[in-house]
Amino acid sequence: MARNGVGREIPETLNGKRLVPYRDPYSRRPAVDRATRAVRRVNPGDSKLVPTLQEAIERAGLRDGMTIATHHHLRNGDEVLNHVVRAVENLGIRDLAIASSSIHPVHAEIIDAIRGGVVTRLECGVNGIIGELASKGDLDIPITVRTHGGRVRAVVTGEVPIDVAFIAAPCCDEYGNMNGVEGPSAFGSLGYAFTDALHARTVIAVTDHLVPYPVAPVSIPQDLVDLVVPVRRLGDPAKIVSTTTRVTTDPVGLQIARYAAQVIEASGRLRDGFSLQTGSGGISLAVAENLRNVMRQQKIKGSFGCGGITGYFVDMLEEGLFRALFDVQCFDLKAVESIRKNRNHVEISADTYANPFNAGAVVNRLDCVILGATEVDVNFNVNVNTESNGYLLHNTGGHSDTAAGAELAIIVAPSIRGRLPIVRDEVTTVTTPGETVDVIVTERGIAVNDRLPELKAELLRRRAPVKDIRQLQREIYQVTGTPRPLEFEEDVVALIEYRDGSIIDAVRRVKA
Amino acid sequence: MARNGVGREIPETLNGKRLVPYRDPYSRRPAVDRATRAVRRVNPGDSKLVPTLQEAIERAGLRDGMTIATHHHLRNGDEVLNHVVRAVENLGIRDLAIASSSIHPVHAEIIDAIRGGVVTRLECGVNGIIGELASKGDLDIPITVRTHGGRVRAVVTGEVPIDVAFIAAPCCDEYGNMNGVEGPSAFGSLGYAFTDALHARTVIAVTDHLVPYPVAPVSIPQDLVDLVVPVRRLGDPAKIVSTTTRVTTDPVGLQIARYAAQVIEASGRLRDGFSLQTGSGGISLAVAENLRNVMRQQKIKGSFGCGGITGYFVDMLEEGLFRALFDVQCFDLKAVESIRKNRNHVEISADTYANPFNAGAVVNRLDCVILGATEVDVNFNVNVNTESNGYLLHNTGGHSDTAAGAELAIIVAPSIRGRLPIVRDEVTTVTTPGETVDVIVTERGIAVNDRLPELKAELLRRRAPVKDIRQLQREIYQVTGTPRPLEFEEDVVALIEYRDGSIIDAVRRVKA
Repeated sequence: MARNGVGREIPETLNGKRLVPYRDPYSRRPAVDRATRAVRRVNPGDSKLVPTLQEAIERAGLRDGMTIATHHHLRNGDEVLNHVVRAVENLGIRDLAIASSSIHPVHAEIIDAIRGGVVTRLECGVNGIIGELASKGDLDIPITVRTHGGRVRAVVTGEVPIDVAFIAAPCCDEYGNMNGVEGPSAFGSLGYAFTDALHARTVIAVTDHLVPYPVAPVSIPQDLVDLVVPVRRLGDPAKIVSTTTRVTTDPVGLQIARYAAQVIEASGRLRDGFSLQTGSGGISLAVAENLRNVMRQQKIKGSFGCGGITGYFVDMLEEGLFRALFDVQCFDLKAVESIRKNRNHVEISADTYANPFNAGAVVNRLDCVILGATEVDVNFNVNVNTESNGYLLHNTGGHSDTAAGAELAIIVAPSIRGRLPIVRDEVTTVTTPGETVDVIVTERGIAVNDRLPELKAELLRRRAPVKDIRQLQREIYQVTGTPRPLEFEEDVVALIEYRDGSIIDAVRRVKA
Repeated sequence: MARNGVGREIPETLNGKRLVPYRDPYSRRPAVDRATRAVRRVNPGDSKLVPTLQEAIERAGLRDGMTIATHHHLRNGDEVLNHVVRAVENLGIRDLAIASSSIHPVHAEIIDAIRGGVVTRLECGVNGIIGELASKGDLDIPITVRTHGGRVRAVVTGEVPIDVAFIAAPCCDEYGNMNGVEGPSAFGSLGYAFTDALHARTVIAVTDHLVPYPVAPVSIPQDLVDLVVPVRRLGDPAKIVSTTTRVTTDPVGLQIARYAAQVIEASGRLRDGFSLQTGSGGISLAVAENLRNVMRQQKIKGSFGCGGITGYFVDMLEEGLFRALFDVQCFDLKAVESIRKNRNHVEISADTYANPFNAGAVVNRLDCVILGATEVDVNFNVNVNTESNGYLLHNTGGHSDTAAGAELAIIVAPSIRGRLPIVRDEVTTVTTPGETVDVIVTERGIAVNDRLPELKAELLRRRAPVKDIRQLQREIYQVTGTPRPLEFEEDVVALIEYRDGSIIDAVRRVKA
């Protein structure tokens, strides 16, 4: 065991792999060359069209012990990973790793394949039941949770070589040109799929909307795609993108949003050229709504909005409050419609978005990011992976990436959730290190990281409810009482990898 | 010496490099992994902006013996390569290779650097004076001429590793996002630059239009760009793109164009889904004009036009005669304007366009390409590199790539040029092998390759002036007389590399 930079005990090795303990957000530097793959040749007349997934898997040469990947743009509506695992199972292939960009509750179908030894490693985070079962000790499979940028880094550096990538393609031609903006499963940006297309040894496009050659516009071009498989449908359209994402109407949430907007104004960053990321949660959107009003009133022209994009950001683009949107993932139909039409709504890869190991990701240029939390602690560390029961239930997403990149990383959360306090002595799991978290905003007050004394002073001058984080914690504990500590076994069920590949925390099995 | 697949004597080695003689167009397969480069890290706050080219070159660590590259989208208006070579000279760096996508007469400025030992290898073809001097023995520098697709192949396989790429960026921000469609030097598609951005060890954006972050739309994203250098201007805007490219008015050219259109009609390929590439020459455009009329009349909906794009193709797109344009290079202002606005006018990389060693290039999907020639021979081999004086004066461009890819590769040329016959017993230099050339069209008749007996029969049925190529040659020789053979020394001044990396011909020094 080694104690890492946020004080967590990290095993020195796990499943034969030597682990690097997290030290700090910025100093780790890559000392490797970009991973490579065989150069191929496709001659005129060669066909890429394959009638079934099973046949495509055979042609790709997938064998025991290899790694497959899908993307999660279809979210909880995705059927592709389930189809793939079923086809693999039918072919009798075993001992696979899954290195998808994320796994959702809909993928509970693969639990049997895990129990049966078909899938024996998850090189990706999980949302929902699989993490819960692993946390309980009911499912025995090593899990490595990565950030969006960290996943790209792991693929690009070759730490996680993808043998076969299955790219769900909402609109595709028989030669593999694809985009995400047309067809019954249109989800917008293909952000997470670009790295797979560039790096997987074999790239298989899976589509429910095969159109005559050529697709236009093209997001991922034909020269990166080996095989094309038509399927009946990619997923459940109702769950792929929401028709709308809404501002919260909850008074607590609205109060938090007002405070957060106040913090941003006080920071002095809300000026021409302002850039912003928010999630799709109701509070985040309420913050965006507040900022939008300020920007309108003060005639502030922002530069860009980024991240998962919602209709709110589309409105701000169309209103001229941003000059561009950088979109790695569309969160609603309005965003899909916008990226299809508006050239200033720019589709970006997860590499461009958040990879710490490239020539400079978009997150590096953020003035401000609004993020959620399941817990924070008095050192400003944030947990988004495990819930109050200690179960691994959530993927990291872009949380640590944007916190590290943005000048101002603001956590918004109600002070009490499910009768439990949001501010703890120690978070159950460190997802994002406190060194990259600037402000925590609850409806009971605002805690500013000591690294920003000027912001704190300015907020006090503006009579904002700034509180020392321990004071805030005490006030919350007065309502909730001191929470009973969770108890864990020694065995590690998941590693929480920081974006640079070091290990920031380990999730342990919950005591029965 | 070894005799290659088109009967040319190829040295076994040259300048210490083992040469692979050309065999045939399709059988050579890559047995290598994609070239790699170091993974880097750029943290928030790191700056990429460098005030001068010289400082950027120092920061890039350029040293004696390395390789630099530029692209040729600025054509004969380019000043970037000249600036770069001057900066390199000032820094005292020597023995460099230039692996640009092409070199133009405007780069005659670098001749002194060649004579002075600053530039000692040209890993790219040359248009104009440098090739002429080399052919005369007045300039001693090894030259390897590559096709557009072959250049990409050489970079991607690592045969030509680029140490520092200088990418002329018409519109760029301080973090390296760029596009080619805005700014005073806007040239449209950044087609040739993508491979450099992905593969060069250091990527330097050079711009005369530095805009506030972020550029949108983005063609080459920030995460691939290491440094950004603002300069006064990239080149002479008057020479960067022409205001218009025109159909020939010459009666000979118009006759050739009518015959070529007749060939395409007879081939049965001019039907819904038809795809076409033409160059920007007056005869090519006249062919396009004829086809356009037929397509209109017969209500044929084509699929795509590709290559260097002219306003003619833009009109056909807008008229609905093509569904998409694949644009590696804009040839006129109308094309620049179109690619800026129209999402069906798709910017593609030279890799996507023509690389023989990827998962399938666009050229593979061409029904028909119209190409020029300086000479053809009775085996349908084509020369576009050397002129009647034997001087190396032209780069290959996409000639061999499209001929190999297209179902129907048609050469259009006047039967006599400068009193010399176009059809010879043997071309001076084989650029494109006869195996990939289907039809030769002159105003005196049409020669069909024996590989296409059905097309020949159909043309005869349509009473087209089909002639055996030797018959056509005889008729031309009756006017011109038999041309006096050129005399060459033994020493090789340039290698003509086929798109797969094998050597299809060697250009030898012209006897004084």
